[in-house]
Amino acid sequence: MRAATIHGPYDVRVENVPDARLSEPGDAVVQVLRSCVCGTDLWAYRGESPRRPGQRLGHEFLGTVTDTGPEVTAIRPGDLVLAPFAWSDGRCAACADGLPTSCVNGGLWGAVGADGAQGEAVRVPYADATLVRLPSHAASDDRLLNALLALSDVMGTGYHGAVSADVRPGAAVAIIGDGAVGLCAVLAARMLGAEQIIALGHHPARLDLARSFGATAVVTRRGEAAVAALRELTGGHGTHATIEAVGTRESMRAALDVTRPGGAIGWVGAPHGNTDALDPMTLFLHNISLRGGLAPTRRYIDDLLPHVLDGTLDPSPVFDTSLSLESVPAAYQAMDARTALKPLITPGG
Amino acid sequence: MRAATIHGPYDVRVENVPDARLSEPGDAVVQVLRSCVCGTDLWAYRGESPRRPGQRLGHEFLGTVTDTGPEVTAIRPGDLVLAPFAWSDGRCAACADGLPTSCVNGGLWGAVGADGAQGEAVRVPYADATLVRLPSHAASDDRLLNALLALSDVMGTGYHGAVSADVRPGAAVAIIGDGAVGLCAVLAARMLGAEQIIALGHHPARLDLARSFGATAVVTRRGEAAVAALRELTGGHGTHATIEAVGTRESMRAALDVTRPGGAIGWVGAPHGNTDALDPMTLFLHNISLRGGLAPTRRYIDDLLPHVLDGTLDPSPVFDTSLSLESVPAAYQAMDARTALKPLITPGG
Repeated sequence: MRAATIHGPYDVRVENVPDARLSEPGDAVVQVLRSCVCGTDLWAYRGESPRRPGQRLGHEFLGTVTDTGPEVTAIRPGDLVLAPFAWSDGRCAACADGLPTSCVNGGLWGAVGADGAQGEAVRVPYADATLVRLPSHAASDDRLLNALLALSDVMGTGYHGAVSADVRPGAAVAIIGDGAVGLCAVLAARMLGAEQIIALGHHPARLDLARSFGATAVVTRRGEAAVAALRELTGGHGTHATIEAVGTRESMRAALDVTRPGGAIGWVGAPHGNTDALDPMTLFLHNISLRGGLAPTRRYIDDLLPHVLDGTLDPSPVFDTSLSLESVPAAYQAMDARTALKPLITPGG
Repeated sequence: MRAATIHGPYDVRVENVPDARLSEPGDAVVQVLRSCVCGTDLWAYRGESPRRPGQRLGHEFLGTVTDTGPEVTAIRPGDLVLAPFAWSDGRCAACADGLPTSCVNGGLWGAVGADGAQGEAVRVPYADATLVRLPSHAASDDRLLNALLALSDVMGTGYHGAVSADVRPGAAVAIIGDGAVGLCAVLAARMLGAEQIIALGHHPARLDLARSFGATAVVTRRGEAAVAALRELTGGHGTHATIEAVGTRESMRAALDVTRPGGAIGWVGAPHGNTDALDPMTLFLHNISLRGGLAPTRRYIDDLLPHVLDGTLDPSPVFDTSLSLESVPAAYQAMDARTALKPLITPGG
């Protein structure tokens, strides 16, 4: 089969790889209908996260089940299914606690030895626990398919940010970052009843999308000027809840500085290299809570799927580009150059 | 009047200072019946926290009102009152949010220009909001007075750790630190229904007290051995809730390593100098929440006072030494040498 692989910084290829096939009795094989490229894929692309030459890429997909192992009971060939960005066994202590991303038998698509989502098909371990069946009518609805694909990672991650920041009805909320996760966090903050939703970012088109998603204000300034603008918008008090959806030292500093005493930061911008970004004195003196992390999107799919199916939640506009599997290298180039917000990959397209 | 002052590292004196007296219309003057020495006082003593020569000391006290300004309505001369470790105006946004330690007009006893608790009397700003009236019968009950004094800081701070760590019925809880705050956190974890309460420390007498306060196990090992022991006690899973009551890099590392994925650290060990103690990758990958900070003990007095008055909560055993005001320098020496857990100071004694 064909799949995207990485061979070094800025060296993404689409190659012939061994076909995805059953290996364990709980496995399924899924033919990919939709995948996409994530901001964290860029770390591998830029050489910031190490990868072995030939390692697969992509961790977001939905598709059609083509084969199931003898222990699989919840899904069957022909089913339309959605995968979260990590597989999980559904029965360990972490899974029971609602934290499948910490599953003792879990893993991420594209890890060494695993298929990536940017390919024709994927072997899915623990298929019963990992995959979520979708109504078959969705397969013929492009917009709905795209909205469902967002539940694999970015919509669930944005929601995790909002839940972790304890967004409540009436809250003043800041969202640091106008990438796909930040934009989905705007949708989540609106769902949870926030009164003020202030998006911080630097890309006019993305901030327009933030407004259409429910942002009540946008701030395009940087650093201290951004913090000052945000404080002014909140009557000088700062925000009750801040969603950090970038992961740099600067974005965490902004989150610490705009959150009011007793407020909370919902942290979903994966940190890389910024080991001293968490200023202890600010957190401690102001009783600012820091919550979040790798989002348990498998769990959130159960919460969010009904809203996507009934049309009240539609993250599909985060996909601003659509490319075939053979064009995955171009998708990475566009993400890296920030000319694409989030490229959709359609293996059959 | 007489009061403790500091003139440099290890140079604590008891001197004549100007009498405490009314300055603003909302002030009260309180004659101190009980004060004590706190672990954080040692930072000033050891020169780790800068102080101006002659600055006052001590932030925990209860006593008798001797004078009130014209705007004070809730208390009157003769009342027995308890003070939290910080004053607050009771009407700003932070006070309304239940976070009086972030009051815009607030401050700490012993700050430059303010009286300290280790003295004969204290001028109390915003007396109506800051002070809590106690029943007059308590004045003749030494044990009860000591228990009430603990609400000024250490009991409220330990409780803040347990609340911030989201201790719930049935939880496995670790408490890092066997100082007075850690011991009070044991009491708080028991109050909140924890099933396992594991105290980490190194002082046999303090750990005996932890057991009498409700600890179900104690761990005296250090570093990785302590973490291993704690994991074993929790069936390999780690704790749901961990209370960090020390404030060093090592104690925070232990807290990060013993908390299970999705668990929470209740952080009440004030950080000093350890700006890189908060390992972002551990927090993020395991979705460990970090909550807490400077404890809003004024608020917690309202919650905890009934339990102290009815005898179901008794932190008084944390005071293992009693000294007169003139002996404050000896109290600091004993705290510094760890021969005293928490010295009580009785100005009239």
